[in-house]
Amino acid sequence: MTSKNYTETQYFTFAEDTPLTLKSGAKIGPVTLAYETYGTLNQSKSNGILIFHALTGGANAAGQHKGAKKPGWWDNMIGPGKAFDTDKYFVVCANVIGSCKGSTGPASTDPKTKKPYGLNFPIITIEDMTVTQKYLIDHLGIEKLLCCAGGSMGGLLALQWTILFPDSVESCILIATNYKHTAQQIALHEVSRQAIMTDPHWNNGDYYGKKLPATGLTLSRMIGHITYMSEESMEKKFGRKLQGKEKVGYDFTTDFEVESYLKYRGSTFVDEFDANSYLYLSKALDYFDLCEGKKLTDVLKGIKAEFLIITFSSDWLYPSYQSKDLVRGLKFNNVDVSYLEIESNYGHDAFLVEVDNQSKLIKHFLTKVTQSRK
Amino acid sequence: MTSKNYTETQYFTFAEDTPLTLKSGAKIGPVTLAYETYGTLNQSKSNGILIFHALTGGANAAGQHKGAKKPGWWDNMIGPGKAFDTDKYFVVCANVIGSCKGSTGPASTDPKTKKPYGLNFPIITIEDMTVTQKYLIDHLGIEKLLCCAGGSMGGLLALQWTILFPDSVESCILIATNYKHTAQQIALHEVSRQAIMTDPHWNNGDYYGKKLPATGLTLSRMIGHITYMSEESMEKKFGRKLQGKEKVGYDFTTDFEVESYLKYRGSTFVDEFDANSYLYLSKALDYFDLCEGKKLTDVLKGIKAEFLIITFSSDWLYPSYQSKDLVRGLKFNNVDVSYLEIESNYGHDAFLVEVDNQSKLIKHFLTKVTQSRK
Repeated sequence: MTSKNYTETQYFTFAEDTPLTLKSGAKIGPVTLAYETYGTLNQSKSNGILIFHALTGGANAAGQHKGAKKPGWWDNMIGPGKAFDTDKYFVVCANVIGSCKGSTGPASTDPKTKKPYGLNFPIITIEDMTVTQKYLIDHLGIEKLLCCAGGSMGGLLALQWTILFPDSVESCILIATNYKHTAQQIALHEVSRQAIMTDPHWNNGDYYGKKLPATGLTLSRMIGHITYMSEESMEKKFGRKLQGKEKVGYDFTTDFEVESYLKYRGSTFVDEFDANSYLYLSKALDYFDLCEGKKLTDVLKGIKAEFLIITFSSDWLYPSYQSKDLVRGLKFNNVDVSYLEIESNYGHDAFLVEVDNQSKLIKHFLTKVTQSRK
Repeated sequence: MTSKNYTETQYFTFAEDTPLTLKSGAKIGPVTLAYETYGTLNQSKSNGILIFHALTGGANAAGQHKGAKKPGWWDNMIGPGKAFDTDKYFVVCANVIGSCKGSTGPASTDPKTKKPYGLNFPIITIEDMTVTQKYLIDHLGIEKLLCCAGGSMGGLLALQWTILFPDSVESCILIATNYKHTAQQIALHEVSRQAIMTDPHWNNGDYYGKKLPATGLTLSRMIGHITYMSEESMEKKFGRKLQGKEKVGYDFTTDFEVESYLKYRGSTFVDEFDANSYLYLSKALDYFDLCEGKKLTDVLKGIKAEFLIITFSSDWLYPSYQSKDLVRGLKFNNVDVSYLEIESNYGHDAFLVEVDNQSKLIKHFLTKVTQSRK
């Protein structure tokens, strides 16, 4: 892409005639996935990389939409000469099913009722998200991806892909992620969901065209933002700085910058994201358990991809020990794994911020994967 | 106390004629403090220990009230032969002003209107809480405490006492606490406050005798509980255990034990605590900054007490580094400080749970302080 080219989202619809059966047993169809591609698919179709986004992300990973204020969420990592070098690779990013950024989700029209699904939308799992993206990759004519990669929720999808479709991917990059959601991760999500579901305007998910559950969604985003930062990064950025006043107000209005920041980020989120999608996607994360009663080493048995796994020292939402367990499980199965914990103060957000360190690791890894081909 | 004796709360009222001027400049009076005492004050009145409670605690620190289901919040630490040995010491614990456990707070009757204060209650600071408890200690005839001690919020009060009344205390025990509230601590409180204040039943604090802001207070307590536990203790206690079902429900009802636990603890809190008191006390914590623009080493200059400071390795709400800063500041001023970080998985809750380790340290410290008297 040159600076004058804008990126555009494309749409792929499938399961129009025969609905898709989800992990829960529920059926859904048709399904549309919003997606974007960057770079060019080579003739042998061997340079495809599938990037998975995090909970509130979308298909616009790189480049900028016409009229948009900001570039895609991983624009500093995807592009010519960048970590995912679009001069070499064909990069695809699709919005997950259940989201509100162009793919079929609870705000989409239910073909049965011609009204928004709301809570009639079926529960989606990480497995379902992965399976639906396989339809897209098949549609794009890619039999085997060079790599699938993602941070946070995106990492769960990438890991899931290597297990569901071991012959369809050569390598996998997992960043700031996990192989099963833990009690604390579930707890933090459940509080966020309760914030939304106890907002009277949520109305059991039926609020489209009416007043939005803005209060609940704002609260839930405020909680989220605290978990995405580290104690240290919050202290460095805000400390006890006051907002628009020289001394504390001795009342319950906003005193501190950190309060003002969270309220602002919470309230702008209401314009950007659908409360029901937040419920569905957070639930998909909480349901994610690669083991489901089996031994981790057994579950990882069929994996053929090689791995790069990255964590960040101050990420308390997805702490490093969780990835280290996964590294051990992969090594036990003789899977080729490179693991690095990057020293960073940015907490979970580091996967969006620590560009230089990640870029070096990813470039090196992708070059190695390409060169080791027979 | 023998097992047949129940403890009883006593009440001390002051500022009846001349109202008390608070740090904010607001005035309040009369002020009642609920308090309890354990053990016997010796003739020289030199064995008094003042214990400060945490945010949601009360005067009933030890022993059991008649008809109560549980003993006081630190009963495992206060009593004959225990850390705070009531065979040797006279232990006092008072409910802070602003709380709802017997002391004057937002639920109390405003003498001007004869109605509950609600938001007409003035903002209370840690300094105000400390000053009001000095009235009680004077009333009890204790010129100089052997020790003041507290965990979490209680630690802030203990530290504040050593600075406001350096001649009225010989030693100070600070547990799992801080000397100024940090951005993350403020952020977590602000989300909790917003949960309460956006509940329509909160009604700008005027809900007494009406429907309570139960939803908001429940949410705020759920957030609190997550911060009081460590990632590891949550994982050990709950992991991914399901609640009353054999497999996940693929819906938005309660799936996991950790969700059920938080909801239960949240909802029972509504019967135990007043939402407005939660606002006032959390705000007092957030306003707490011992330095207020000055250098920590300067602020600590006048301290005469010797210190025991304890933190817990997995406490991410009041991380050890904050206490270590304080230790350095005290040592710079030639204050006698013993500091220990106890290895514990219980997170911030450890100060209520790690009885053996704390008891050893506290017993030894109090014996040393008593023996070093001239």
